[in-house]
Amino acid sequence: MSHSPVTASDHDLLTALGRQLRVDAVLAADAASSGHPTSSLSAADLMAVLLARHLRYDFEASQNPANDHLIFSKGHASPLLYAMYVAAGAISPEELRWYRSSGSRLQGHPTPALPWVDVATGSLGQGLGIGAGIAWSGLRLDKRDFRVWVLCGDGELAEGSVWEAVEFAAHERLRNLTAVIDVNRLGQRGPTRHGWDTGAYARRLGAFGWHTIEVDGHDTDAIDAAYTEAAAHTGGPTAVLARTRKGSGVRAVEDAEGAHGKPLPDAAEAVAELGGRRAIRVQVEAPEYEQPSRPDLRSLAIPVYERGDQVAPRTAFGQALAALGHVRSDLVVLDAEVADSTRTGYFEAEHPERFVECHIAEQQLTATAVGLAVRGWLPFAATFAAFWSRAYDFVRMASISGVDLCLAGSHAGVSIGEDGPSQMGLEDLALFRALWRSTVLYPCDANQTAHLVAAMTEHSGIRYLRTTRGEMPVLYGPEETFPVGGSKVLRSSATDEVTIVAAGITVPEALRAADVLADSGVDARVIDLYSVKPCDAATLRRAAADTGRVVTVEDHWPQGGLGDAVLDALTGALAMPSVLKLGVLALPGSATPAEQLRHAGIDADSVVEAARELLSG
Amino acid sequence: MSHSPVTASDHDLLTALGRQLRVDAVLAADAASSGHPTSSLSAADLMAVLLARHLRYDFEASQNPANDHLIFSKGHASPLLYAMYVAAGAISPEELRWYRSSGSRLQGHPTPALPWVDVATGSLGQGLGIGAGIAWSGLRLDKRDFRVWVLCGDGELAEGSVWEAVEFAAHERLRNLTAVIDVNRLGQRGPTRHGWDTGAYARRLGAFGWHTIEVDGHDTDAIDAAYTEAAAHTGGPTAVLARTRKGSGVRAVEDAEGAHGKPLPDAAEAVAELGGRRAIRVQVEAPEYEQPSRPDLRSLAIPVYERGDQVAPRTAFGQALAALGHVRSDLVVLDAEVADSTRTGYFEAEHPERFVECHIAEQQLTATAVGLAVRGWLPFAATFAAFWSRAYDFVRMASISGVDLCLAGSHAGVSIGEDGPSQMGLEDLALFRALWRSTVLYPCDANQTAHLVAAMTEHSGIRYLRTTRGEMPVLYGPEETFPVGGSKVLRSSATDEVTIVAAGITVPEALRAADVLADSGVDARVIDLYSVKPCDAATLRRAAADTGRVVTVEDHWPQGGLGDAVLDALTGALAMPSVLKLGVLALPGSATPAEQLRHAGIDADSVVEAARELLSG
Repeated sequence: MSHSPVTASDHDLLTALGRQLRVDAVLAADAASSGHPTSSLSAADLMAVLLARHLRYDFEASQNPANDHLIFSKGHASPLLYAMYVAAGAISPEELRWYRSSGSRLQGHPTPALPWVDVATGSLGQGLGIGAGIAWSGLRLDKRDFRVWVLCGDGELAEGSVWEAVEFAAHERLRNLTAVIDVNRLGQRGPTRHGWDTGAYARRLGAFGWHTIEVDGHDTDAIDAAYTEAAAHTGGPTAVLARTRKGSGVRAVEDAEGAHGKPLPDAAEAVAELGGRRAIRVQVEAPEYEQPSRPDLRSLAIPVYERGDQVAPRTAFGQALAALGHVRSDLVVLDAEVADSTRTGYFEAEHPERFVECHIAEQQLTATAVGLAVRGWLPFAATFAAFWSRAYDFVRMASISGVDLCLAGSHAGVSIGEDGPSQMGLEDLALFRALWRSTVLYPCDANQTAHLVAAMTEHSGIRYLRTTRGEMPVLYGPEETFPVGGSKVLRSSATDEVTIVAAGITVPEALRAADVLADSGVDARVIDLYSVKPCDAATLRRAAADTGRVVTVEDHWPQGGLGDAVLDALTGALAMPSVLKLGVLALPGSATPAEQLRHAGIDADSVVEAARELLSG
Repeated sequence: MSHSPVTASDHDLLTALGRQLRVDAVLAADAASSGHPTSSLSAADLMAVLLARHLRYDFEASQNPANDHLIFSKGHASPLLYAMYVAAGAISPEELRWYRSSGSRLQGHPTPALPWVDVATGSLGQGLGIGAGIAWSGLRLDKRDFRVWVLCGDGELAEGSVWEAVEFAAHERLRNLTAVIDVNRLGQRGPTRHGWDTGAYARRLGAFGWHTIEVDGHDTDAIDAAYTEAAAHTGGPTAVLARTRKGSGVRAVEDAEGAHGKPLPDAAEAVAELGGRRAIRVQVEAPEYEQPSRPDLRSLAIPVYERGDQVAPRTAFGQALAALGHVRSDLVVLDAEVADSTRTGYFEAEHPERFVECHIAEQQLTATAVGLAVRGWLPFAATFAAFWSRAYDFVRMASISGVDLCLAGSHAGVSIGEDGPSQMGLEDLALFRALWRSTVLYPCDANQTAHLVAAMTEHSGIRYLRTTRGEMPVLYGPEETFPVGGSKVLRSSATDEVTIVAAGITVPEALRAADVLADSGVDARVIDLYSVKPCDAATLRRAAADTGRVVTVEDHWPQGGLGDAVLDALTGALAMPSVLKLGVLALPGSATPAEQLRHAGIDADSVVEAARELLSG
């Protein structure tokens, strides 16, 4: 990091570099006929100073764990980011012309298709939280002195998620985190709430405990001094609040409304006004290369439970997690202040140094987890299944980033009982199924839960485990295996006339239903579909072919969950069987778990009724 | 509102009332064997003073538009809320014994099953935003002088949504809003970040422009003075930051960790310690009864479009909304600073007084809409389809509240083109289908869009419209009708061998595919399933029976959307046809809209291929 004062020649270089970044951003958007050049221009000087004098990054070794991290939270300023890559020699100026083209890694918003991009951005208000997660990892786990730089827009400070990040970063005293706020005063359609009043932001951030510096965002000397001051401030995170002009450097669009998100009206004129294209190549200071550390993975040891015992799946989840903490040194567990309920408290008790209390802030819970994943840790984050709906956009973006993340949702479904609908996860299966490359698991007993928790840690992408609040009988012996994408056929005979597909809390109901049907002379196949996505199409298809009738039963709204997964698995060239899907029928209130299952139409009696309807059809 | 000083007898009454509220809360949780008595006890004195001396509410006429609003954002303190209803004579002490029982309206967390509850709470961090929406309505639309009181916990201030609300309320100078923060310092599992440091909260709220008052939350005189000061403060919203003791009044649990969310160990002893049960009946000051105003509804006039013209559905949406603004005086439109993109700008231009700019804060966008709905307005809120994932928990809770809400999501699917995956709504159909009593509509042309926007305003529950960014040919004449739950059969003959079900952007692809198939001698039925939920099962079943083969095609992940809706509609006692579901195959990058449809496997060629696979099956 450069602490030497900016000389006259430095000054000229920075000014020229700021212009070159502008030119390349303008040309990229012009080539694409779309994009956000004006939002790029406002931050060009901020990024010129960062690139030339403060960022420590080896563009030839993005995996170097000593590298700084740079996150463009305002992802729509991608032309500026890519112009920086050109200036750093990481990509050629020619590649910029493919900006936003099919197959180009220079997408409209940055994604990790580029090796120097940690996470996809473009949904505003996410970068600071993820940056805070990375910074936390640096201070508490990696114990390395890289810095995290996050470029934010002013408009995105209206997102509540930013304030979850602000609180987290201040409370954790993340001195290695610098937010660079590009206060260009104009949003998509007009002025932001606070315009150029950087003081308004400084007061807010200061009240949360941040160090703040207000600067003219086009004064390279002032910017340099601000970054130096930020690095020197050891009490906590720093925000550089930079007053800038949107479209800066090009008269036709500078500080003008109506110029958001479109190429400049005359790119050639703009480039001429900016002094033409230069070919400045910045030698970005690269830190010494260090080997990424490898986690210490020992042989698997998970808790085992006695068949017939009553154990809540959430408890088995917590205990398995604690056990895995001993065999995986890279496992870090996060919770949103409900660890007594989710049962991650078991992990915290044994591995306090790898437990992150994120308080009641599910977006920051997810952002911190993503930040840890960026640093190579394996995060496992938990809250109530219902409250993942609070962080869903963060999970969505994590899946676009291709991040490896394990998530758990407790208190699934109506079976939680008395607490009522606000606490019931009734849409979580739909949410997590509708993600790119996601895995969705829903165990019904303690041994299955423990196995699936272990399996999750060895999988990739977004993995979700749905746990049940109440005690359930241990159904499986500890020797059983539960591969992701598999299922368990619990009842089967050559004379089966109907198949019942269940998971989690409805598995015991399905078994009871099969008993009742057997008493009346009807053999039913029972499948425990613990792996909801991917799901075991082969077993389902065989059962459908054998029995011609399928009843699905789930503690979830009828949309997007287990039933839809089963139907999807049965599609194809062959005709499908007759199917009845049982899901929660009506809005629940308070009641005992057993009453809830009955009212929802997903208890054993409801399954029997559905099977009989199909048999008489 | 009482401005007279608290006399000695007032003081005694308030103290006694605080004890009675505690006793009833303890007894309710004891009867239920679950619930949160300790979180109720901390706020008992705060609520005693409010009920006896400040709240203006006619418990016999909850529909009185002059009533104050009281929202328990910390919904788990429901025993306290219900104890207040007992003290106000709204419910009997006996009813409390049914707390959390099956069929009881006294649910674990409050819902509008009770006439005095505006919205369901229990997902923390939502009450303040909704209260701000109600207060905004009071000042700007209703022009009535009711007050809004929101009881918040301290732990929930970690939710970013709270800070979206704080910013909105300060910026809108909501002088009729008072947040009562119960700073009991203990969360579910231990101390909150700031413990009893009410100054930490005061600094933060003050920086955002709130008036703050720090008080001892068990000093009824000080509380009374604080509420009086809050009402007198006309510059904006006020927060009363009350230092309290969790479990206050019962030594066994007072300020004790490990006592969260469970009945007291010895309720009888606690009641004795609190001086036994009293029978204080508070005469809550009721405002003069006023008739709720009725909206001015004139006959429908929506824009019409010429067949064959090219119009973006989002544009037709904006224009229809603007037209409806002239015939419905109760229509209020909200946007999250993307009105140029969603096209709600058309409405704003013609009805600026009924347009709410919520800036980039989708949770507050939803909360404001819910607040307006509570006041009887018909809110129509819009943002990008992808960004509804940011507010999904608020939408979920709104559906539990039974609130009437119209929502629109623009920029659906890969067809937006170059902006890339962060901006593409690819999971919105799954999200909105998986809600209690929701309606999901997805038009393919301008006339259909305009009709559906109008139909939405006459429907109930959560209604979602998915709009397309690019221009599409006007397919339908303006005379056509599009009932919710209907569909349009665009191609049909007695010799159809396959059915193609599409909606929105894939409708023209389906028609092109049918043309190609016809050229090779295969007749295909084409169904425009614009009403994804509820969906036209009768037409789908007829088509399935007639053709035996169904291809579904949607610009959405394959999970939880159109294809799953079609499969669901085909379930039942009869065997299902063979089905192939086409949805987005892989993570998109940047590309033109046409390239995106091809890469995603949802263009006409892909449909033809799928149909041929089924035909050869």
